[in-house]
Amino acid sequence: MPTEFELIARHFTRPRPHSQAAGTVLGVGDDAALIRPQPGEEIAISTDMLVAGTHFLPDTDPQDLGWKTLAVNVSDLAAMGATPRWALLAASLPSADEAWVAAFAKGFFECAEKFELDVIGGDTTRGPLTLCPTVLGTAPAGSALRRSGAKPGDDIWVSGQPGLPALGLGLELAHLQAGIKLNPEGQAMCLAALHRPQPRVALGRTLREGQLATAAIDVSDGLMADLGHVLQASMCAATLRADWLPLAALINAGATASQALTSFTSGGDDYELLFTASPDKRTAIEALSTTLGLTLTRIGHCETAETQKYCATLLDAQDQPIPLTRTGYDHFR
Amino acid sequence: MPTEFELIARHFTRPRPHSQAAGTVLGVGDDAALIRPQPGEEIAISTDMLVAGTHFLPDTDPQDLGWKTLAVNVSDLAAMGATPRWALLAASLPSADEAWVAAFAKGFFECAEKFELDVIGGDTTRGPLTLCPTVLGTAPAGSALRRSGAKPGDDIWVSGQPGLPALGLGLELAHLQAGIKLNPEGQAMCLAALHRPQPRVALGRTLREGQLATAAIDVSDGLMADLGHVLQASMCAATLRADWLPLAALINAGATASQALTSFTSGGDDYELLFTASPDKRTAIEALSTTLGLTLTRIGHCETAETQKYCATLLDAQDQPIPLTRTGYDHFR
Repeated sequence: MPTEFELIARHFTRPRPHSQAAGTVLGVGDDAALIRPQPGEEIAISTDMLVAGTHFLPDTDPQDLGWKTLAVNVSDLAAMGATPRWALLAASLPSADEAWVAAFAKGFFECAEKFELDVIGGDTTRGPLTLCPTVLGTAPAGSALRRSGAKPGDDIWVSGQPGLPALGLGLELAHLQAGIKLNPEGQAMCLAALHRPQPRVALGRTLREGQLATAAIDVSDGLMADLGHVLQASMCAATLRADWLPLAALINAGATASQALTSFTSGGDDYELLFTASPDKRTAIEALSTTLGLTLTRIGHCETAETQKYCATLLDAQDQPIPLTRTGYDHFR
Repeated sequence: MPTEFELIARHFTRPRPHSQAAGTVLGVGDDAALIRPQPGEEIAISTDMLVAGTHFLPDTDPQDLGWKTLAVNVSDLAAMGATPRWALLAASLPSADEAWVAAFAKGFFECAEKFELDVIGGDTTRGPLTLCPTVLGTAPAGSALRRSGAKPGDDIWVSGQPGLPALGLGLELAHLQAGIKLNPEGQAMCLAALHRPQPRVALGRTLREGQLATAAIDVSDGLMADLGHVLQASMCAATLRADWLPLAALINAGATASQALTSFTSGGDDYELLFTASPDKRTAIEALSTTLGLTLTRIGHCETAETQKYCATLLDAQDQPIPLTRTGYDHFR
């Protein structure tokens, strides 16, 4: 059986084509990695842990899991408008299963390559399957997108198609959550969205560079819950219009209207960007959608909040509030 | 039961006295933290995962565990000679046990306070007890201590008292590893070393600032194994003298001569610094020992390696090699 050091050496020591562009001084193999940011740059840094049984099913395809492990962390950099630069990976594995590690590493480095990350360090240990990347990106000082800049009157936008991953997960948990039945094309689309999320790095960067967004967050806990985080940080309220939500693709996939609404508003695991922008940026944002080939949908607007009521209301076509039973994922509920 | 967000807010949102000195732009609460290093600085970054049952016993006192979780990561910065600046913590917890979280956070922040770290982010989730900090420190560009600079003829030094934590662990695992019997003072000393390791930050910084060391590593896997990493990176061999090893404190604690030698050379979990230095630095290093109030012991020297034989030999007083049965901790063996 290969040792810990051999496993790391065999699958995680690779050519590092982005080392120079990132500004890496020293990568894997010492007590710490060394990086040298450019003058005038800030570093955005984030770490998210993925635990078998909590964030993914233990029998998830390891190559997909490798991609997703890095992608969901890169998504946090996208939400700041930062350029991804460096990644580290701490991993706890139940055994030294080399085929599993090889496939996992393949998916992880596919994602690193796609977003031009330099993998500079990490840690491997034995234990329950747990993956904990740390990612770092850069942005000119003072320019990063935050959750706290939304203002009353701002439009609320979302990228891509939230809801697909939740339907995909519904399929995989079919024996627990009966009732989700999709057509074959819908199944493929939802499972791809679940297993190969596409962090919106180019969107985040362009929003930042063009000063188009006042606030941004990536949708991981569920759209309404993540919107709530923006509203809390920005001390705003918001109204979303149910008839503006892009639910058609979910219904075309085979979801019922109710499943479509629930998975869109509360499903989570989307890694789309939710952002706010002044109404005078609508034309620029629609042009950006075309340039990036990425749907950007305006789903509501921000409002002045009554004291401490930093929450969002979803209205139907008759201006009646639609109650949502589940507004986000809390790991301890 | 408190939610994940409430737990984090209650115990991990604290005054951040080192935020300004560290150069933090944005701490906990957004998709990523933002830091702004000083011009001319490099950033050292490291992440180490601690898993219940692998790195610590599940019933370890949570306050001690909080300290140790951060301390063993800070030790990696010490080994680079970096000044600790920032920490993030990703944690997977089996349940929202508030008393446990409160005690853990207390120990974690004790360590952060001691080493003046700004805690800027993290992630909490449900799952098997796993703790994964990421730490960042700074050093002037080009000055960080590495594993790769040792040269034939260099002295080999070690700080403090390796071996104590291994004896402490031996006590705790007494039902598995019969035979370790310490006196009361020895027990207290070994358990303190095991549960409250003291990363050698001041030593690392001073070695770097005074250009005293040619290479450094922190002793986590076991002294011989970690020396092996330095030799591999530096393409050197080494001889250690058994009669130079500081074993008296281990024997005074109640260990047998054999237990003392094994725990010193192979115990691990020490978080002392092992470093190499030119013989003309001996006086300066002895003076540094006095200044820091920290024992620094010269235990051998580096030699020219035969091709690919980057290994260390331990000689007894009659110049005979002493075989070591266990040379380090491999999580997958």
